[in-house]
Parts: sequence; structure tokens; C-alpha cells
Amino acid sequence: MNLTLYASPMSSATPVVHALTELEVDCEIVILDLKAGEQKRPDYLAINPHGVVPTLVVDGTPLFESAAILQWLGEHYGVQRGLWPAAGTPARLEALSWSTWAYVSYGMLVNALNFAQSPNVDARLHHAPLAEEIRRRLARALDPLEARLAAQAWLLGERYSLLDLIVGSVLTHGTYCGASVQRHPRVADWLGRFAQRPVLARTWA
Amino acid sequence: MNLTLYASPMSSATPVVHALTELEVDCEIVILDLKAGEQKRPDYLAINPHGVVPTLVVDGTPLFESAAILQWLGEHYGVQRGLWPAAGTPARLEALSWSTWAYVSYGMLVNALNFAQSPNVDARLHHAPLAEEIRRRLARALDPLEARLAAQAWLLGERYSLLDLIVGSVLTHGTYCGASVQRHPRVADWLGRFAQRPVLARTWA
Repeated sequence: MNLTLYASPMSSATPVVHALTELEVDCEIVILDLKAGEQKRPDYLAINPHGVVPTLVVDGTPLFESAAILQWLGEHYGVQRGLWPAAGTPARLEALSWSTWAYVSYGMLVNALNFAQSPNVDARLHHAPLAEEIRRRLARALDPLEARLAAQAWLLGERYSLLDLIVGSVLTHGTYCGASVQRHPRVADWLGRFAQRPVLARTWA
Repeated sequence: MNLTLYASPMSSATPVVHALTELEVDCEIVILDLKAGEQKRPDYLAINPHGVVPTLVVDGTPLFESAAILQWLGEHYGVQRGLWPAAGTPARLEALSWSTWAYVSYGMLVNALNFAQSPNVDARLHHAPLAEEIRRRLARALDPLEARLAAQAWLLGERYSLLDLIVGSVLTHGTYCGASVQRHPRVADWLGRFAQRPVLARTWA
């Protein structure tokens, strides 16, 4: 299978680059200069009409959205490497549920928090009461994760998997945006262990 | 395969119920009374620790998050019915990309708009400049969809598919939250055709 990833450092492409490294998948990585607007050039828009990174081109066909790319990588390369559950197993349904939860349910709160208080967003959009409420909801949203990590070391059991990479990446990004994991010691401990994975320490490109 | 869906009318479970009907999949549907808090009862939290609907229980294992359930239904029941592309085809990658785009990228803007102006949200959270900016971003986000629908009648080509149901459901929900499709006549036309699908007219439970 021929793979090319269009990516950029410090973007939502980062977890995909980490996953490729973790899975030891051979993939050409093309870095786009987002500040120069390379993601809006016609040749890239032909691959990803939304003009954002990442896009993974699989044998000539583009796959976009980080969440979709990460799950697809898990299915295609993770099972044989013991990093993603096999199709038809209960653990596969758990992996689909929790990875989607991270990107959709938790991620949309992180995005709302970002609008409400991020220094990267026009200050006229900021709104303190909204930021406060979202931080509260983000904290509550971690309760089920805290309970899960009370019963097992990693999200799918006693071994690290790509699900830890997916959910861990979203939650780490959330902390950069102002979400707190302080009230959830097991989540904080797990994120700390996640941050020590060798792939996270490697240089990017 | 034994399927039970935990759902509630007027919730994010609705597209899943429509998909089950469209796919003619035999599934027991258990309605939870959200106002009575049935989704927070211990027996349901044991199935879905986030305490929300929908959850699809597949042979005893819970699958949650609408986006995950809809894609899983497509893979397991949609291919043989001609409503979801087969694994390994370019169209499958398009279906994954666009359905994830709807739930993650478009959906998080809808959620932010909801906080900024929805009558269902505490008015102290409302913020007019944010609502205006989000409406602008939501409109821009439809440009690629408008271009796609200029080339073909439905999202995967000349025939309706589950991808139309998934993206159409998110966008229809977005219009209820104040997103506009006025600047995008082909999107508006496609949403109108989508709304005429017989499954959308059937009673719920």
C-alpha cells in the first residue's frame, strides 16, 4: 500500500505522525507550510477540499480527518502489531466508542473552550462565563475515564494501545487549551505515562 | 447478531434509528426517559458510563457515540444493501472522511454555536460576537460540500447512501441550532431531498 501524509508540525496532524511511528508504517510525509498558506493551494485543495491537515493519501485516494485516519491506521496496521483490537471482538467496539468519544464529545468541548478563552482567538470572541462552564463540563467528562483507569493501567487493559495514543493526544491538546485533569489523578497519571512513549520524544520530520 | 439500541426521541439517537430503518436491520429499541434521568441510572451507566444516548449493544458489548455506531452499521449492514461502500474501495475512504468531518469538524462548530445562542442554554453563556463568527465559519465550511454536490446528486455519487443520512442529519441538526445553508443552494436542495426519505417520516418508536 502506498501512503503519503500531508502534515504540519504543531497541528492536528501530530497524533497521526506519532501513530505511523508507533505502528512502524512506511509513509512519505509531506510538510505543508500553513503560515504560507500551502494548505489552500489548488493542488492541495484537490486532495482535501477543506484546506486543512492532515490528509493521508492511500493508493491515490485521500482520507481526511485525524479521527478517521487514526482508526483506519489501527484497523490496517494495528491489529497485527497488537496495538488495535481485531474486528469482531468486544475490545474493537470499545476502541471505536472511546476514540470517537475523544474526538467528538470531548473534542467539541475543547473547541468551545478554545473560542471562549484562547490567546490564539480574537479576544472579542472570549467569554468568561462560557469558559468557566466548559471547564466544568470538561472536568465532569473525565469521570468515566477516571473510573476506567482505576480498573486497568491502559484504556484497553494492561497494555498500551493505539487507543491510548488517540485519546491521550486529544486530552493533552485539551490541557494546552486550558482543560484541567487535576481532579482526576488516575487520568493525570495515565497522561504522564503516555507522554513518556518514545515516539512522542522523536523529532517531527 | 443480537442488537439493542438505547435511544430517546429528539436526541442524537435519531439518525441511528433512521439508519436501522433504512438498512432494515432487526434491532430492539429501548426508549429512555431523559427528563426522568433514566440515562443516569446505574444499570444504564454500566452500559454507557457517559450517561447519554444512543448506545448500541452488540451481542452484549456496548458501542457508543452516534458517529461510531453509524459507521459500524454501514460496515456491517450497508455494504450488502448498496448503502455503504465496500472495504478497500476509494469510496469507503470518502465515506469515512466525510462522515467524520460532519461529526467532528462541522459538529464542533454547531456545538459552539449552540453555547453562544441557543435558547436551550443558560443565557449567561450566550455571546453574540462568538455566535456571529461561528455562523460565518459554518457557512464557509459548506463550500466544499457545495462543490461536491455540483458534480453529483448525492455525496457518494448518483445514488443515495448512508453517508447522505449521516452528513444530512448533522447538517439538519445544525439548521435547528441556527446554522444557515442559504448561501449554498445545492446543499439546501440536497438537504430537501434528504428530508423526503421515507424513513424520516415514520413514527419514532
